[in-house]
Amino acid sequence: MLSTQPYKGSRDFYPADKRIQDWMLSVVRKVVHSYGYEEYDAPFLEPIELYQAKSGEELVNQQLYSLVDRGDRTLAIRPEMTPTMARMVAGKFQELPKPVRWFSIPNVWRYERPQRGRLREHYQLNVDLLGGDALLADSEVLMLAVDIFRAFGLEDKVQLKVNNRKLVDHVFGKVLGLSTEMAHKAVKLIDAKDKLGPEKYTAALGELGLSALQIEGLNSFLTEPFSKTQQGYSDAEGVKDLVELFSLMNFEYAPGKKYSERVTFDPAIMRGLEYYTGTVFEAYDISPENNRALFGGGRYDNLLGLFGKNKMSGMGFGMGDVGLRNFLETHAKEQVLAAGKGSVDVCVCAPKPEFMALSNSIAQMLRHSGFRVMTPLSTEGFGVHLKLADKHGAKFAVLLGETEVAQGKVVLKNLTTGENKTLSKEELVGALK
Amino acid sequence: MLSTQPYKGSRDFYPADKRIQDWMLSVVRKVVHSYGYEEYDAPFLEPIELYQAKSGEELVNQQLYSLVDRGDRTLAIRPEMTPTMARMVAGKFQELPKPVRWFSIPNVWRYERPQRGRLREHYQLNVDLLGGDALLADSEVLMLAVDIFRAFGLEDKVQLKVNNRKLVDHVFGKVLGLSTEMAHKAVKLIDAKDKLGPEKYTAALGELGLSALQIEGLNSFLTEPFSKTQQGYSDAEGVKDLVELFSLMNFEYAPGKKYSERVTFDPAIMRGLEYYTGTVFEAYDISPENNRALFGGGRYDNLLGLFGKNKMSGMGFGMGDVGLRNFLETHAKEQVLAAGKGSVDVCVCAPKPEFMALSNSIAQMLRHSGFRVMTPLSTEGFGVHLKLADKHGAKFAVLLGETEVAQGKVVLKNLTTGENKTLSKEELVGALK
Repeated sequence: MLSTQPYKGSRDFYPADKRIQDWMLSVVRKVVHSYGYEEYDAPFLEPIELYQAKSGEELVNQQLYSLVDRGDRTLAIRPEMTPTMARMVAGKFQELPKPVRWFSIPNVWRYERPQRGRLREHYQLNVDLLGGDALLADSEVLMLAVDIFRAFGLEDKVQLKVNNRKLVDHVFGKVLGLSTEMAHKAVKLIDAKDKLGPEKYTAALGELGLSALQIEGLNSFLTEPFSKTQQGYSDAEGVKDLVELFSLMNFEYAPGKKYSERVTFDPAIMRGLEYYTGTVFEAYDISPENNRALFGGGRYDNLLGLFGKNKMSGMGFGMGDVGLRNFLETHAKEQVLAAGKGSVDVCVCAPKPEFMALSNSIAQMLRHSGFRVMTPLSTEGFGVHLKLADKHGAKFAVLLGETEVAQGKVVLKNLTTGENKTLSKEELVGALK
Repeated sequence: MLSTQPYKGSRDFYPADKRIQDWMLSVVRKVVHSYGYEEYDAPFLEPIELYQAKSGEELVNQQLYSLVDRGDRTLAIRPEMTPTMARMVAGKFQELPKPVRWFSIPNVWRYERPQRGRLREHYQLNVDLLGGDALLADSEVLMLAVDIFRAFGLEDKVQLKVNNRKLVDHVFGKVLGLSTEMAHKAVKLIDAKDKLGPEKYTAALGELGLSALQIEGLNSFLTEPFSKTQQGYSDAEGVKDLVELFSLMNFEYAPGKKYSERVTFDPAIMRGLEYYTGTVFEAYDISPENNRALFGGGRYDNLLGLFGKNKMSGMGFGMGDVGLRNFLETHAKEQVLAAGKGSVDVCVCAPKPEFMALSNSIAQMLRHSGFRVMTPLSTEGFGVHLKLADKHGAKFAVLLGETEVAQGKVVLKNLTTGENKTLSKEELVGALK
């Protein structure tokens, strides 16, 4: 006997879950569309070379799902969408109007040990903005990210922590005098700081070769970056960029609410050294019990180089559906529950076999007027039918009783109040509205 | 250098194509929802056993994409959705209210030689109705199929050809006296009749062992099934079912239009012997130049048996997106083109760096009022900005000129007529609506 469970680390979407997912993503889509972003999509199988070229080694060697097709071509199931986006933009580079504002909500797969918030398959909103003035673009993408939460009425529950990679490079290189390799390793330690605890963290920095003075300088940058003007980076390019970035978001979008207040500078946001080149950010739930990053992104360069196209700088982020749903269940449980409910407005009930065509014709009329209408597909009697209507969450029932049909009428029953009205077929649509 | 093409036989959806796909499927979804069907979804990777058990041998051995995961589990990319649907229904068999009305629009993969209308990846609407009175259910699914085309204003371009497997079994077994095996083979020849041509077809039936009398009886059934009352099946169960099925759809859904007229009996509709047990149908474009079946389906039994659940009869069909899009491009080219257009309503243009926060705040106000708004992300001047607005298909531009901003005003430009209006920020939303 076969199992009825889905493959480990992946999810079935039964109808109630599918409705919640659709609601959640429709809110997201509406926001992204409001910024003029265009949705794209692509096959989830790609030649494996696409990932070997640019994705991290760990991902390709340990997490990729790959297969060989019957023509001996090695393919991979996409573990992320960015390489596909780059392929597609490169494919129509000349004809695409710039700036390119694109988004997609693909499912992506990685082989990992399933745990809370980390599945083998998840859906991921990918937002990318290629071209245009970098800081104007960065401010747009940050505001868009805030607006996604604003659309759920929850932007106060989120904080975007922003940094700039030029500033990080400046501090690591010019101020602290670290080599690129040491900087790389220090970044990994900073990312793991909370896991390690302060003592192990400081010890590890020492083992890496940082002097006590360098460690002190690093800590002072990470904890109070602008407290001392003598730190030698207050006029660095990355700082100027951050100041301008914040000024672009310094206006009220609603009485007493500014984007620049939802976004804070945090020098500890790193997001790996290789990929990003300017603004980087991570979004955090402000609730202390859920302090993992919800999502993040940043500015990258030269993504199209693999396809022989000109350098083009872009800004983007990826937001997983699992984290977003957890966030909504924490802060808007009622909205989530409401979204999962109901697929039927009206149940048309006719217990007599000879009324079936009439029942079909009434159901069709109501469907054509915009209602979601079911029929019980049986002639068992009103009692059974009304129970069925209730199980399916119908709000109204239309009853085709013998007496009423003989008079050219039907009964409309409000299933919430129990109230009955006898109406002609023609009055039905109006009464339901 | 990497290729920018997608994997052979699969498609990239650039934004215009994605908009057409979304439009097409949103119309389809609305119809299916109007019948109270609930959408479900599932991972596209399934244990391979799910297909080995029930899908045809050709499919599993020659067309399946399979892979072995890092835990040595053999998985397949779904080549069809029905086994997944059966798995999920079986998994919650007790708690699901009956009848179960479910649909999904998954992408499915088969390794085949790509050709017109047949790709390796396509999206497929799957509609299934499990439980309820069989003929009531069958009539509902047929009407739903007609209504999909009705929603595009094109139901007159489609004919549903219906048959009943009980009638086919009766004629092959009782009337013509064919063994089950011979009937199997005869069905394959009937399905291939148009390819073979009448002479080869008749010769092949003879080689199969059918006598001249049997061939004549078969042909008479296929071409004029009800012309002779003496043919011995006019009171067969399958005929009674067909008559009742048509009577359930014999009403006007619009002045002068009946579902029963969009559906015709065709004894040559077979759809393979093993799977279906009652009503079967195929939908055809009535245009002679496009006479392939658009899609088809029928009544099946015992789909849940593999999961140890009770017998449950269902009715369903699968409709591919490629065939539907071809159909729409043939009959509603204008609608398709319109659906592909436009992702921006308004472009907010500000050539001065110091107006950028103002520009952002106006853009945000318009987005929040429901418009899709872009900014050019540059300070190059109105000329460049207006060209950009045009390239992105914007219908209006908001111009932040120095003079107007000093007076607390902006210029609203209609990009179709060229007309300009000087307005306050507060008047903008009203003027755009």
